[in-house]
Amino acid sequence: MTMQRFGRLSRPPHPVLFDVLYKPAMRTDVEHLLDYVLRIDAAHVAMLAKRGILRTDVAACLLSVNRRVMASQEFRARLLAGTEPHRGLYLAIESRYIEELGPEAGGAGHVGRSRNDINATATRMRARDELLNLGADCLHLQLVLARRAVELAETLVSGFTHLQPSQPTTLGHYLAAVLSELSRNTLLVFDVYDDVDRCPMGSAAGQGTSFAIDREDVARLLGFSGVIDNSLDAVASRDYMPRMLASLAVIGGTLTRVATDLQLWASEAYGFVSWPDDLVSTSSMMPQKRNTFVWESVRGKAVAPAGALMTVLMGLKNTPFSNSVEVSAEATAYAWPALDSVRMAIRLTTVMLETMRVHADRMCEWLQGKDVTMTALADYLVDAHGLSFRTAHHAVSAFVEAKTGKPRNTAAEHQLLVGILREQANLSCEISDERLSRALDPRACMQNSRFGGGPSPDHVRTQIAALEQRGRTFEARLAQRRRRLDAAEQALSERIDAIAKGNR
Amino acid sequence: MTMQRFGRLSRPPHPVLFDVLYKPAMRTDVEHLLDYVLRIDAAHVAMLAKRGILRTDVAACLLSVNRRVMASQEFRARLLAGTEPHRGLYLAIESRYIEELGPEAGGAGHVGRSRNDINATATRMRARDELLNLGADCLHLQLVLARRAVELAETLVSGFTHLQPSQPTTLGHYLAAVLSELSRNTLLVFDVYDDVDRCPMGSAAGQGTSFAIDREDVARLLGFSGVIDNSLDAVASRDYMPRMLASLAVIGGTLTRVATDLQLWASEAYGFVSWPDDLVSTSSMMPQKRNTFVWESVRGKAVAPAGALMTVLMGLKNTPFSNSVEVSAEATAYAWPALDSVRMAIRLTTVMLETMRVHADRMCEWLQGKDVTMTALADYLVDAHGLSFRTAHHAVSAFVEAKTGKPRNTAAEHQLLVGILREQANLSCEISDERLSRALDPRACMQNSRFGGGPSPDHVRTQIAALEQRGRTFEARLAQRRRRLDAAEQALSERIDAIAKGNR
Amino acid sequence: MTMQRFGRLSRPPHPVLFDVLYKPAMRTDVEHLLDYVLRIDAAHVAMLAKRGILRTDVAACLLSVNRRVMASQEFRARLLAGTEPHRGLYLAIESRYIEELGPEAGGAGHVGRSRNDINATATRMRARDELLNLGADCLHLQLVLARRAVELAETLVSGFTHLQPSQPTTLGHYLAAVLSELSRNTLLVFDVYDDVDRCPMGSAAGQGTSFAIDREDVARLLGFSGVIDNSLDAVASRDYMPRMLASLAVIGGTLTRVATDLQLWASEAYGFVSWPDDLVSTSSMMPQKRNTFVWESVRGKAVAPAGALMTVLMGLKNTPFSNSVEVSAEATAYAWPALDSVRMAIRLTTVMLETMRVHADRMCEWLQGKDVTMTALADYLVDAHGLSFRTAHHAVSAFVEAKTGKPRNTAAEHQLLVGILREQANLSCEISDERLSRALDPRACMQNSRFGGGPSPDHVRTQIAALEQRGRTFEARLAQRRRRLDAAEQALSERIDAIAKGNR
Amino acid sequence: MTMQRFGRLSRPPHPVLFDVLYKPAMRTDVEHLLDYVLRIDAAHVAMLAKRGILRTDVAACLLSVNRRVMASQEFRARLLAGTEPHRGLYLAIESRYIEELGPEAGGAGHVGRSRNDINATATRMRARDELLNLGADCLHLQLVLARRAVELAETLVSGFTHLQPSQPTTLGHYLAAVLSELSRNTLLVFDVYDDVDRCPMGSAAGQGTSFAIDREDVARLLGFSGVIDNSLDAVASRDYMPRMLASLAVIGGTLTRVATDLQLWASEAYGFVSWPDDLVSTSSMMPQKRNTFVWESVRGKAVAPAGALMTVLMGLKNTPFSNSVEVSAEATAYAWPALDSVRMAIRLTTVMLETMRVHADRMCEWLQGKDVTMTALADYLVDAHGLSFRTAHHAVSAFVEAKTGKPRNTAAEHQLLVGILREQANLSCEISDERLSRALDPRACMQNSRFGGGPSPDHVRTQIAALEQRGRTFEARLAQRRRRLDAAEQALSERIDAIAKGNR
Repeated sequence: MTMQRFGRLSRPPHPVLFDVLYKPAMRTDVEHLLDYVLRIDAAHVAMLAKRGILRTDVAACLLSVNRRVMASQEFRARLLAGTEPHRGLYLAIESRYIEELGPEAGGAGHVGRSRNDINATATRMRARDELLNLGADCLHLQLVLARRAVELAETLVSGFTHLQPSQPTTLGHYLAAVLSELSRNTLLVFDVYDDVDRCPMGSAAGQGTSFAIDREDVARLLGFSGVIDNSLDAVASRDYMPRMLASLAVIGGTLTRVATDLQLWASEAYGFVSWPDDLVSTSSMMPQKRNTFVWESVRGKAVAPAGALMTVLMGLKNTPFSNSVEVSAEATAYAWPALDSVRMAIRLTTVMLETMRVHADRMCEWLQGKDVTMTALADYLVDAHGLSFRTAHHAVSAFVEAKTGKPRNTAAEHQLLVGILREQANLSCEISDERLSRALDPRACMQNSRFGGGPSPDHVRTQIAALEQRGRTFEARLAQRRRRLDAAEQALSERIDAIAKGNR
Repeated sequence: MTMQRFGRLSRPPHPVLFDVLYKPAMRTDVEHLLDYVLRIDAAHVAMLAKRGILRTDVAACLLSVNRRVMASQEFRARLLAGTEPHRGLYLAIESRYIEELGPEAGGAGHVGRSRNDINATATRMRARDELLNLGADCLHLQLVLARRAVELAETLVSGFTHLQPSQPTTLGHYLAAVLSELSRNTLLVFDVYDDVDRCPMGSAAGQGTSFAIDREDVARLLGFSGVIDNSLDAVASRDYMPRMLASLAVIGGTLTRVATDLQLWASEAYGFVSWPDDLVSTSSMMPQKRNTFVWESVRGKAVAPAGALMTVLMGLKNTPFSNSVEVSAEATAYAWPALDSVRMAIRLTTVMLETMRVHADRMCEWLQGKDVTMTALADYLVDAHGLSFRTAHHAVSAFVEAKTGKPRNTAAEHQLLVGILREQANLSCEISDERLSRALDPRACMQNSRFGGGPSPDHVRTQIAALEQRGRTFEARLAQRRRRLDAAEQALSERIDAIAKGNR
Repeated sequence: MTMQRFGRLSRPPHPVLFDVLYKPAMRTDVEHLLDYVLRIDAAHVAMLAKRGILRTDVAACLLSVNRRVMASQEFRARLLAGTEPHRGLYLAIESRYIEELGPEAGGAGHVGRSRNDINATATRMRARDELLNLGADCLHLQLVLARRAVELAETLVSGFTHLQPSQPTTLGHYLAAVLSELSRNTLLVFDVYDDVDRCPMGSAAGQGTSFAIDREDVARLLGFSGVIDNSLDAVASRDYMPRMLASLAVIGGTLTRVATDLQLWASEAYGFVSWPDDLVSTSSMMPQKRNTFVWESVRGKAVAPAGALMTVLMGLKNTPFSNSVEVSAEATAYAWPALDSVRMAIRLTTVMLETMRVHADRMCEWLQGKDVTMTALADYLVDAHGLSFRTAHHAVSAFVEAKTGKPRNTAAEHQLLVGILREQANLSCEISDERLSRALDPRACMQNSRFGGGPSPDHVRTQIAALEQRGRTFEARLAQRRRRLDAAEQALSERIDAIAKGNR
Repeated sequence: MTMQRFGRLSRPPHPVLFDVLYKPAMRTDVEHLLDYVLRIDAAHVAMLAKRGILRTDVAACLLSVNRRVMASQEFRARLLAGTEPHRGLYLAIESRYIEELGPEAGGAGHVGRSRNDINATATRMRARDELLNLGADCLHLQLVLARRAVELAETLVSGFTHLQPSQPTTLGHYLAAVLSELSRNTLLVFDVYDDVDRCPMGSAAGQGTSFAIDREDVARLLGFSGVIDNSLDAVASRDYMPRMLASLAVIGGTLTRVATDLQLWASEAYGFVSWPDDLVSTSSMMPQKRNTFVWESVRGKAVAPAGALMTVLMGLKNTPFSNSVEVSAEATAYAWPALDSVRMAIRLTTVMLETMRVHADRMCEWLQGKDVTMTALADYLVDAHGLSFRTAHHAVSAFVEAKTGKPRNTAAEHQLLVGILREQANLSCEISDERLSRALDPRACMQNSRFGGGPSPDHVRTQIAALEQRGRTFEARLAQRRRRLDAAEQALSERIDAIAKGNR
């Protein structure tokens, strides 16, 4: 693996370079790219053999080393040791071929390709796997959201705007809204996937090749749905990276909002929801504490894609439209930790929603005296007594203003309202106690809100059913993509076996 | 329009509030939202009349004021004057209705709706129009790119990686690569469009309404393709904002890369391309200057969406999942200037590509002595003489090293190569002068690069044809969306006329 | 002002260029840069006269036009009209000189300078003014914070961590903490100011000049504290822009946190603070609403610098280290709206803090039964009974756990505690009712917290006094900087008068 | 270390929580925080003993375990194993104390403190060390820049604006400009350091304590320059994090610009500079390649702080102003990798500048025919022949225009110029060949640029001397800070020894 000389270069990398660039990069590359690069190598060699560009026996030797040696722990350990100078993963692999097979056979596979297209391909393979895992996590979260939303479709709670009580709603309606936004943005993951899922191999250093290679064959063996038409686009573009991060930043943004609401509703002042002991923390100092700190971790981890997106966009800015280390290695490196981070946020959110205890009585009780049915009262005055909405609104405003700070007393309030209506709206109507108290009942209000996408339980259940259908479609797409990857792995394996037996 | 008292509030806004919030907001709102809000108002009132929630004669009065007064310059001027305290656009409109029609008729339209859903709807209408304009700009850029790429499909130029000459290619191949990336990301504009194109009206303050409104009717009259199922999702979500900005940030990123290359290639050291006098600047001090500074403006304007995206994501972070000024007014406001900015970058890029003068002779001449065919030479040794690629690569490396700094001399170089091959690769072959010079001819190299998406002109023309097809599909979608908006405007107008005649 | 030809350029700018770049730029430039550019012009011409590079009579003519014509509304109107093609502010000014004085005198001032250093200087002058205004706003906010903190230094309130009640504190202690962070970061504004406050004039296009100019003279006449030593640094650097935005982003971040707390504490569930009618909003639909939405605007406006910082950093990235439109015009343009935005957030925060009504009774009452003195109880057991803190903490935890959900009853709880201590901590002590209830009294707890920077009122007042001292130092620096600017204006004016009289 | 129960919590963390939060956090904490936390622990216990809050013998036991056990590899290994459930680093340390010393002595140290202030303190200690290392790296880079700038102060090269040749300058002048910007921003590192360097211990959970602790003592033992006055500020604030990242983002921005210039100047089309074999790469496919790819890594790594800054700012946004996991753990975690990254960029830049080979002949030759002395020619016409600069500029513009594309011929050009001057400027002067050729000589031009901070070598050497002085001041500050840390370590060690001997 020693690299004293390579091509025009008579010396191994400068110690600072090795220390700062090659050595740390190898650690990540062995963990995250080695398997992809070996698979690419195998597919490329198999194709070269099929096209007669490489002799079958040479191909068989290369593939045997690829399978036997490269996948060994010994090889990984040697790469990781960092005791010998090297110039990165790909050349270290090639020198191992040469070590095993001699310079002619060992150096025969690098035909019609370059590190540029190999790297572009490996990165896309990694992105594919990450996106599929992420998709599965998103799907799981959505299933839990849907389940809890259905379960809580009748659980009355105050709605809020600007942190102040607004109108009666249900926790199910709230969760359905969140699910709606989340599932909409999860779909973006596949928009990106399908653009990622095209194979750059054969683009070489951006100008293709004169060897009569078969790109479609390589693409198929690596499970790609197709190739990239233009060789420069293939090695220069990493546009899927910011797109991937952007969709995650949007999903992360949604999580921060839900986490904000649910942590608040779990706090002493609300007590709407709570979590068991294994999902809260206490304080090392304050014995009374039960902190739902997990939501803080969710929020803290959910913002990772936003910053990483910025770094990647910045990394791409003002770079030549061609292969460059700045884009292909440096900028893309920022994406992966952010992806891990947002997946953690998703997993934490999922477990928190699964285990959330809902205190329906407390929510009902909290509603009392919060005037959340004042809109319903105005609506009633419009509907039953023909006031214009603005007149009704102002009269009810005056009613609220007048009764605020006074002890609650239904009869007195009835009188107060009648007086205000007479004076302000010139309305000398009879309002029966029974109709009034119906207009003021939070649960009735919530149930009546059947139009415009409101919390009426039947309506919410219909919404969720539609979102679950969207989830199932998503799940089917996930499965279909996974199947293609599995089939490709199988096909590549069979090709290697055939070549070992002397068939291309 | 005076707002001494509104509902519970006995006083107009505090002077600082008025100065900092209401007054400047009105300026933007009159310019960018007023027309949308008036149209929403009209559609909502027409629907209320149709459903019998509002009397037809009241509706007719409201619609008459909507058409006649509100659209007048006098009304706009009054809104802009800022001499009377107000609480924002919507309430100013409503007080004008009341001024004209009295409190009963004038205040009758605000049934089953709130400022929350009106604002959510108006913002989406604005986003729709902006996206259509942006789409048209993107399309225009793509048409120009495609035209120039075809025109330059045979124009030989050096390829570059890491700013160093790589292999022969064409300017057409380069432009096709750029077009490929751009057209891929332009499609995202429609992904967002179709999510934007759903109507929030009827969601009211996030909990829908008990009035038996017809949301689909309003949606249709405003040209939306449908409604938003969940009322909380409708008022709380602005996820399309970061998505819109993210797709523009990606497009902007591509522009910075192209601008970097083309400005460089226009510089003294390259001279590949140039622009006429009306597209360059000179210096007020240095008389010799012809600066292609427009590319710097392109780059400077193309980064706007990245920062705006960040502000919007930050604006959304940790906000309650409900209507909030932080999200619905503040955060969204950052998007529009960034959109303008990136459209300017697109327009400038388009005009620069349209007017770009290409100096084919200079590009050919520049290629000389740059060793861009050394890969082709190695490929030839593999192909014709059966060397392994690595052996060939090292031999050619030694050849390059040996001839560097020496005067160019074909015969001597031939000898040098033969010597190196004998010594390093044990290859005592005959290499005919003619075959060698063919292997070393840049144009032949470029033409031979027929595999892997390389610059071979026929191949590039096929790529462009496919991208043009993609462009036509995009154009058709644009046109289809525009037609729906036009039809809706027509339908709304007819409904207003009908109501004026006493028909709902 | 017509610019058919300028130097090598035979044609006016292309219509798209004019439309996209020159025309809109002129609007901003006339509003924000014209005055600075005219002042720079005057100072430069005065210096040239003093050094004998320009004849005094020519200088007098130029200065007369500078004063008389350029400052006129007619000139501004003509610049804004955009009916004649132009190439930006500076050349339009120069053509006006030529129009008035003929080509020789009119074109004589542009010696030893270029648009590069003029632009660099004008931008710094604008930044100086903006920073001084911002500093004044920050100072005002700090004065209000200090006043309210002193006023509320004894006002008991629950502390919070993770949104759960922690230990007793005061609102004054909270505001003092905020003031501490804010005043620390406000100081950064002057770090930037002092780097901004150096004059680039004389750097010309980045390579200085051979004319024997006097840079220090120009710097003095423009109120700068000195010059920039290296001419390339002078025109290429805009590092103060991201620095300015970064300090504002940090200040903005603090505002979002305070706004989050205070809006929450104003909500129904807390009711700790409230605002009068002219600082809240109601709902057009929900009559009961009093929304402290201003805090949402504060947060929404406070994030502007973060995104603008990102755009500016992105604008600077990978640009040549020399003058470039990308840096000097495009990137810097993003800073100003963000600056306006954060100033609005500061002003809104100031008025909200000034007008905040504090409900001390409600805060006291809210504390009841929230177990905020459990740490004090554990401390008491350590202090008075010699338990290790962890033993005490676990015993008190068990005590809290046991009494949760039971009706409050002092005697029963005393018994419970004694039992737990005996069992868990092997402590069979006498705990007097009186000592226990003292340990459990929130106000006593708060007052006892005299160490480690806790809320003990005397301690807090000392903190605030120190911060007020820091504020006065800041104020003095502000005033000193303003005085230098005023003095320079005076000096320049006198020099112009002298030259008009024929003295250099 | 098992944590079945802790305080109110009857169960260990949920498996998902453990997997996602506690386990991965422990890995980073053991590597980066353990040593700090142990030191804090020791200092706190020593202070408690001194104040008589803890018995000396108990303190001695705790300190002995702190020294002996905690620092052992066995302890680290056990923490890292992750086989037993735990609740994070601090509680794992405490349980080890209890394991070794029993619950009373083992649990006695957590008096007057909480995890909040410990965490705040440890993070500041880490930040201090990182800033000192970073400062040293910055200093090294500046020394190299200064050395090369002096060395190249007479090395003629073309200046550039907008990538086009502008005026003659030197490489030394260029590097001095870069040094000027860099050294200015390096100073910010200490602005942050001095705010970081204040000790939060004693703030406990944000409300201080009633135990009569001595904060100054702890601060001294940990090497801090003082304490933080307000306990809430101490645990809630992390404003130094975005400030630290912002200063690095600015430094990173400068690096991207230098890297852009130097990579360009190393490219084929310029050839001004080059690097030896151990600092370039070749291509696995293109044998002719020598790529200065290191500059791409520099740029790619230099943008890390910008994105991390964004994530941290986002992490802080809308969080309560109190201790929260979102701020104290999650948001701060993003800073460290970015810091590593920018340090790598600095180290790479340093080695590249150290090893850069400068091709002075090539730079001189490149200048020929690039018209970089046309400004000097116009200046000469102003100076020697009394033209107004604009007249001279237009005449020289016409001259450039006329001679462009024609073969170079000094005599003919002289004639051309004379003709243009006569016609355009009405100037029938004699211009001697000798004076003209002096005016047109690049080296003379460069040397004449003695005003306004231009490249005249003496002037540049003076600039560099001043910057070197600034560097020495910086170095002295670095050393002074390091000495305080070393002295504190010594003092703490002596205190522990004394307590072991029974003295407080």
